[in-house]
Amino acid sequence: MKTPSGISGIHISTDREDLICYSFDASIAEPALPHAVAWPKNTDEAVRIIKYATENNLHVLPRGAGTGMAGASVPSGTECIVVSLEKMRKILDVDTKNMTAVVEPGVVNGRLQKDLEYLGYFYPPDPASLNICTIGGNVATNAGGPRALKYGVTRDYVMGIEVVLPDGSIINAGSKTRKHVVGYDLKDLLIGSEGTLAITTKIMLRLLPLPEDVITLLVIFKDLESSGLAVSKIISSKIIPRTLEFMDRSSIEAVENYKPTGLPENAEALLLIELDGYPLTVKKEAEKVVDICNRLEGEAIIAEDDIAREQLWEARRSISPALYQIKSAKINEDIVVPRDKIPSILVSLRKISEDTGLKIVSFGHAGDGNIHVNIMADKDDKEEYAKALNAVKKIFEHTLKLGGSISGEHGIGTVKAPYISMEIKERELQLMKGIKGLFDPKGTMNPGKIFI
Amino acid sequence: MKTPSGISGIHISTDREDLICYSFDASIAEPALPHAVAWPKNTDEAVRIIKYATENNLHVLPRGAGTGMAGASVPSGTECIVVSLEKMRKILDVDTKNMTAVVEPGVVNGRLQKDLEYLGYFYPPDPASLNICTIGGNVATNAGGPRALKYGVTRDYVMGIEVVLPDGSIINAGSKTRKHVVGYDLKDLLIGSEGTLAITTKIMLRLLPLPEDVITLLVIFKDLESSGLAVSKIISSKIIPRTLEFMDRSSIEAVENYKPTGLPENAEALLLIELDGYPLTVKKEAEKVVDICNRLEGEAIIAEDDIAREQLWEARRSISPALYQIKSAKINEDIVVPRDKIPSILVSLRKISEDTGLKIVSFGHAGDGNIHVNIMADKDDKEEYAKALNAVKKIFEHTLKLGGSISGEHGIGTVKAPYISMEIKERELQLMKGIKGLFDPKGTMNPGKIFI
Repeated sequence: MKTPSGISGIHISTDREDLICYSFDASIAEPALPHAVAWPKNTDEAVRIIKYATENNLHVLPRGAGTGMAGASVPSGTECIVVSLEKMRKILDVDTKNMTAVVEPGVVNGRLQKDLEYLGYFYPPDPASLNICTIGGNVATNAGGPRALKYGVTRDYVMGIEVVLPDGSIINAGSKTRKHVVGYDLKDLLIGSEGTLAITTKIMLRLLPLPEDVITLLVIFKDLESSGLAVSKIISSKIIPRTLEFMDRSSIEAVENYKPTGLPENAEALLLIELDGYPLTVKKEAEKVVDICNRLEGEAIIAEDDIAREQLWEARRSISPALYQIKSAKINEDIVVPRDKIPSILVSLRKISEDTGLKIVSFGHAGDGNIHVNIMADKDDKEEYAKALNAVKKIFEHTLKLGGSISGEHGIGTVKAPYISMEIKERELQLMKGIKGLFDPKGTMNPGKIFI
Repeated sequence: MKTPSGISGIHISTDREDLICYSFDASIAEPALPHAVAWPKNTDEAVRIIKYATENNLHVLPRGAGTGMAGASVPSGTECIVVSLEKMRKILDVDTKNMTAVVEPGVVNGRLQKDLEYLGYFYPPDPASLNICTIGGNVATNAGGPRALKYGVTRDYVMGIEVVLPDGSIINAGSKTRKHVVGYDLKDLLIGSEGTLAITTKIMLRLLPLPEDVITLLVIFKDLESSGLAVSKIISSKIIPRTLEFMDRSSIEAVENYKPTGLPENAEALLLIELDGYPLTVKKEAEKVVDICNRLEGEAIIAEDDIAREQLWEARRSISPALYQIKSAKINEDIVVPRDKIPSILVSLRKISEDTGLKIVSFGHAGDGNIHVNIMADKDDKEEYAKALNAVKKIFEHTLKLGGSISGEHGIGTVKAPYISMEIKERELQLMKGIKGLFDPKGTMNPGKIFI
């Protein structure tokens, strides 16, 4: 590509092999080739790219690692420049006195975790893709993860943010101090905006001291109901584990067929429970949890060391890729319901599966009501796929009726855009679209996402 | 007042004694009589009031208990209807399974705390005015409090919000689930907006299990520097107390003159430290804290029971009213700096006090860098008062240079409005004003606040 003069010196490509690499994300959204891919190395380059795009009526799609599940990172078409932040991957500052870190958006979540753990601190949000996904992408989708149950989501740890607006101006929002009441909260507006408002170029994160001890338990249940009951009994006993993950029988089978890790295939449900804190506290809590599970005929196994713990987590994190072994396509939803409504939603899911004949695999974050519902369907089998899409709508209806939400972690992107008005009412959508117009009057940023 | 037909049946008054009662708040802002005061009993009445006001070109000022320190609850003048939410004071729901509560805006913070504690849960935000201030007011200012050090501020506990917009439409933002990525975050935009966007009519809060044990320590220091050093040493030892409050010598003297509680008047600084959690953990942490303080020649006293604990907190909470004994007026700022910059800001404050000859009393939340700086000045002494206002600007300059912020808890209101552009840049202010225009195109809501 002949580099346009306004962006000389910036790494940019229109080579077909590059365009293909950036034409898709981890979702079922139809891939689309962009006009070009640009890799800014710093904020100044991001400004120059966005200005060039705005002046030439091109769209801008900021992109992290492309692990998104809702299609927000799929180009809107040949008018679109993908701005990949992967070269902005410096950890700029770790300030242990104030327990903050400043990172560029391309820093991989897992790498930051490792660096911080070495210093005795930690950054709680831990999406399953943590070894690939970037902090910038996490901010764009307000990413969660298993530890959200105790520690909250990305939003709870972003203190400040630097972004570039479509007109090329650089703005800052938030503060290095946790208390901060000076004007409207632009920071939280930007978090979770899926690249539709600005390019994030710097992020200040809040850190926590690393807990002294962690105990990981795997509990095997003979029936689904008991596992659901165990979840509510643990929480109502006032123990808040850092994770409380759930796998149904189909997820267990899928993982064992894909990459055997020794999970008991005949179990009806598993809970992966992790407790952290002071050694004595954690031990006491673990005993209580084991007791609760035993009374429900759950058989608890304690991971004796880091290797055993990693093996259990490896199994949990393998579910998503493993499911592709069952069918060439899955529709992967991430509904969330109030915690006590998990048994109800599991019943609805089973009924929908029976009514449609579709295999539905469920796993996820039982502790905070966030269930990853995978409808296994062959995309080439038009009839089956249409049935699956219809099931999605039913699942959302049941979820919303229970006071839940259609997305806990993945966001809306293009995949859930047709459903957003099931949850968000017209007046609220009007305000959101008004905000979009304020930040991005020409519609430069990631068009066709969230709102359609 | 002849009640206008559109709002018949709603309690509304234009009696002079009512207007006077609602003409001021806890700030130094000049009182102003409103046009009327209305007391809606439910959302529907709030809608009818706001519609009436909009149609008649009147302003609307939503008001909690009027404990605000920045003038946001002072009427803009005779075109203004004060909408006092004090009659909407029902706790609508406490859901222990999901650890949430739904309250009306007029519920008093301290009353909610007591009700929840009885059930074994707690709502962390605890502004010093907690026995008077309302949750609605807390939301409007994103209120903090001593426990913010460990638990965060109001924003961290508001899950969902129902508000009435100036056009009378009712919108909902947020979710009963902590994970939620569906469109832009309108909830956080409304939190901290100081009544300039909408009337809050319902709030869903996140609760936590009540910690099993609390230990309260009072530590007496012979010099200011040691107390500052103790704060950073405690945090860097990876202990996060739930509170880490600081009082300088002048604050101690003021409290003892106002309402003697037995604080040692010859101390140069006090730290009020509270640890919570499992009994064994808390005990271990308290021992560490005492050891750190002893090495800095701090003398620690442990509150043996609830009465002793309450007495210590009573002293801390009396500082603000006690200061009026020194001078008829105080300019009460609530700057916040990164925690490790506390020694630097204390040095600056001392220098400003010496240079100007003004008495400056400092106390507050040392753990999170939020210092309440009180410049004692007689409002009738024009020269002294002008000097004091000049000192405010200097203090803000020093604060911002240290990476801090001009308001940690109080917000901007009218009192800090002249200074907002010292911290928030033009482009960010433009966006904020744009948002104001979107929510409130006719400028109905609480005009003259935040932005001038």
